[in-house]
Amino acid sequence: MKKVVLIRHGESTWNKENRFTGWTDVDLTQGGINEAIKAGKLLKEECFKFEKAYTSYLKRAVKTLNVILDCMDLDWIPVEKSWRLNEKHYGNLQGLNKAETAEKYGDEQVLIWRRSYDIPPAPIAHNDPRSALNDPRYAGIPKTYIPDTEALKNTVERALPYWFEQIYPSLMQHNEIVVVAHGNSLRGIIKYLKNISDEDIVGLNLPTAIPYVFEFDDDLNLIKDYFIGDPEEIKKLMEEVANQAKKK
Amino acid sequence: MKKVVLIRHGESTWNKENRFTGWTDVDLTQGGINEAIKAGKLLKEECFKFEKAYTSYLKRAVKTLNVILDCMDLDWIPVEKSWRLNEKHYGNLQGLNKAETAEKYGDEQVLIWRRSYDIPPAPIAHNDPRSALNDPRYAGIPKTYIPDTEALKNTVERALPYWFEQIYPSLMQHNEIVVVAHGNSLRGIIKYLKNISDEDIVGLNLPTAIPYVFEFDDDLNLIKDYFIGDPEEIKKLMEEVANQAKKK
Repeated sequence: MKKVVLIRHGESTWNKENRFTGWTDVDLTQGGINEAIKAGKLLKEECFKFEKAYTSYLKRAVKTLNVILDCMDLDWIPVEKSWRLNEKHYGNLQGLNKAETAEKYGDEQVLIWRRSYDIPPAPIAHNDPRSALNDPRYAGIPKTYIPDTEALKNTVERALPYWFEQIYPSLMQHNEIVVVAHGNSLRGIIKYLKNISDEDIVGLNLPTAIPYVFEFDDDLNLIKDYFIGDPEEIKKLMEEVANQAKKK
Repeated sequence: MKKVVLIRHGESTWNKENRFTGWTDVDLTQGGINEAIKAGKLLKEECFKFEKAYTSYLKRAVKTLNVILDCMDLDWIPVEKSWRLNEKHYGNLQGLNKAETAEKYGDEQVLIWRRSYDIPPAPIAHNDPRSALNDPRYAGIPKTYIPDTEALKNTVERALPYWFEQIYPSLMQHNEIVVVAHGNSLRGIIKYLKNISDEDIVGLNLPTAIPYVFEFDDDLNLIKDYFIGDPEEIKKLMEEVANQAKKK
């Protein structure tokens, strides 16, 4: 039996301020660090022994992973980082408050930007200091691959090659793998693994820092998937994520 | 111009308790975390932009590196970990207090174990729970490579292949590299780079968490080396390390 555990990073400063984050490299809050500690302790209690870890280029994911591995005494395992696991790029919305944006454009328009499968927000200008084109961490990536905005569809399409080329093949060598990433890049992987439709995937609201386990048989067929933790608490957390875009 | 920065991990719990640590995977103290923060801030002020990082399999080094990278907003860069950068294996002394060991065996014998180039302490038994043979993190390494004790000579001989095979070749692709490791594995690299004799290398006492910069020209010839920080403070720290094995 093989296991891949998907984990969304803990609360970030902009989650807390309810701002569109996307590729902005904001830090974890103390609450986010505490969530990661809780996840790490839970995974240790459940006797997980990850042999390899994957994460994004964004510190809220990298640091969540580091804290989890430290709680599990697994600081030493190999970690691969990729821009393909980054959050959905939120284009010109990056930095704006979600509730204020909803007041300005209306709940409906914001829900389209946040939750439609294939309608992206307006792009960020190439000369905008927020553009990823100006960030040296993306210098090794062909410029045409670097998004200036994304719909969920675009995020799924650039995250999935990383699943096929890196994570899935490493399941041949390893029994337990952890992926710490973001709400939308993880939606991409989950959409594929569970064969979820374009319409239904936008309704999947991953709670932060709750381990989501996917079990595979030795032929790498998916057997089952489940969250680790208190089911009532997880349900509440998922509803909170779904309600973030509503007006105050 | 190319730069490799070598950094010894910050204070660990067993540094503080003055115990022989070796391959024991002890944590950083809060003081050690603070040292790492100081180093990271200093490197950021000095405008270092590491493109790749190397560290050992031991959490006091991994966590020192993670803290430094976080202070520099470089959480995203690739990190490679290797047992070859681990501290010198201290054999059967691992876990013993240095001052008590000096009282029992005499300063001279302890200085031989700590500071002779080629006399190792007594080996750890293979069925000892402390043996690295029983630790899954070393399961991928041929058993004959896993030490049960080491003299500095042995540490140098297993650390240097990592310099030649991994770190040095990556200088072709990168301009700035950071290596966070341990007093003795770093001695191995420094011994080679500066062509230090077997007799003199044992007198080199690296202070914890002080960045030690090696500059290379574009043909990868070593040009110069220097510590970053206050020279008086660095001198004092080096003397403290040298005095650790003396009786109280």
